[in-house]
Amino acid sequence: MTEANEPHAHHHGYIEDKKAYLQRMKRIEGQARGIEKMINEEQYCIDILTQISALTRAIQGVATGLLEDHLKHCVLDAAKLGDEAASAKIKEATDAINRLVRS
Amino acid sequence: MTEANEPHAHHHGYIEDKKAYLQRMKRIEGQARGIEKMINEEQYCIDILTQISALTRAIQGVATGLLEDHLKHCVLDAAKLGDEAASAKIKEATDAINRLVRS
Amino acid sequence: MTEANEPHAHHHGYIEDKKAYLQRMKRIEGQARGIEKMINEEQYCIDILTQISALTRAIQGVATGLLEDHLKHCVLDAAKLGDEAASAKIKEATDAINRLVRS
Amino acid sequence: MTEANEPHAHHHGYIEDKKAYLQRMKRIEGQARGIEKMINEEQYCIDILTQISALTRAIQGVATGLLEDHLKHCVLDAAKLGDEAASAKIKEATDAINRLVRS
Repeated sequence: MTEANEPHAHHHGYIEDKKAYLQRMKRIEGQARGIEKMINEEQYCIDILTQISALTRAIQGVATGLLEDHLKHCVLDAAKLGDEAASAKIKEATDAINRLVRS
Repeated sequence: MTEANEPHAHHHGYIEDKKAYLQRMKRIEGQARGIEKMINEEQYCIDILTQISALTRAIQGVATGLLEDHLKHCVLDAAKLGDEAASAKIKEATDAINRLVRS
Repeated sequence: MTEANEPHAHHHGYIEDKKAYLQRMKRIEGQARGIEKMINEEQYCIDILTQISALTRAIQGVATGLLEDHLKHCVLDAAKLGDEAASAKIKEATDAINRLVRS
Repeated sequence: MTEANEPHAHHHGYIEDKKAYLQRMKRIEGQARGIEKMINEEQYCIDILTQISALTRAIQGVATGLLEDHLKHCVLDAAKLGDEAASAKIKEATDAINRLVRS
């Protein structure tokens, strides 16, 4: 929780197509299980690495999608409250982007 | 399958501590489920992105671990067969590294 | 040029501390020259890779800094023109983030 | 310097086409100067970010190329000295890959 006084599971309502994100996450869980199976069967390493790259791209796609929704909703809402509120939100988003670029 | 005539689930036997990898993959599946839950509850976007960065680092850690095992076993085994066999294996591993760096 | 009718070298005026960015770029050019020298002298590969990782982090730091300035200025300015203009700017920024995460 | 008692600029002789690498580094220096110029002229942020992504891909390409040469030469040479020497070299290379993936 990065927001003070944030109740657990507060609905921020910024996610534009939640159902699609949940389906993408289900698919990513399936990819993780598939990789686990490949490791258990000691399949060829390069094939496993290819699947790991695919999973990484899939989860990064979820991240940049959520980030776009967040910028559109939370950041633009903050912009209406004034430049200082918007700057703080943008700093927070940029820090998150930094962590994504590095991970 | 990148190897011709590779039977399904052939045991390459290069993974040094399979049990630890399987535990790491179980944890990654748990992380994916946690992210799905956070999206479903529309938790704060930045918190979700932090968890996605953590999952990405975890899966990349599995990738570089497997790569190390692969280089130690498959590549060094190929080295015993001669420079050409070793070069082909190293080219294949470097292509996989390239995909990881890009993903 | 991604903006139509953009005159060459139009001053967008969004960069908050241009002098600091120019110094960072000078340093990055120096890092590139250092790596060239290391290759020319065939220094130890792992040492060269360490310097390449440092250069990559430095240029990514410039990228996320510029992105933060861009979001603060161009995107918030667009927000004042209405939701549609802001959405277009955010889509464009998110696409750029995607390219950074992938590169 | 990661090797003990390594004289400065020792020639490791593992680089397969040094001239091509030096040309690639010259091009990367040119890219860095181009980005500096774009910042100085305050060109459109998204265009600068596109050039930064291109520079990042170029330097990562140099990194994986050098890594391939290194694995082919230094690691396979170490393999001839025995499994322990090879394992140490592979651990060192994998650590470098980890830093590349993270940067």
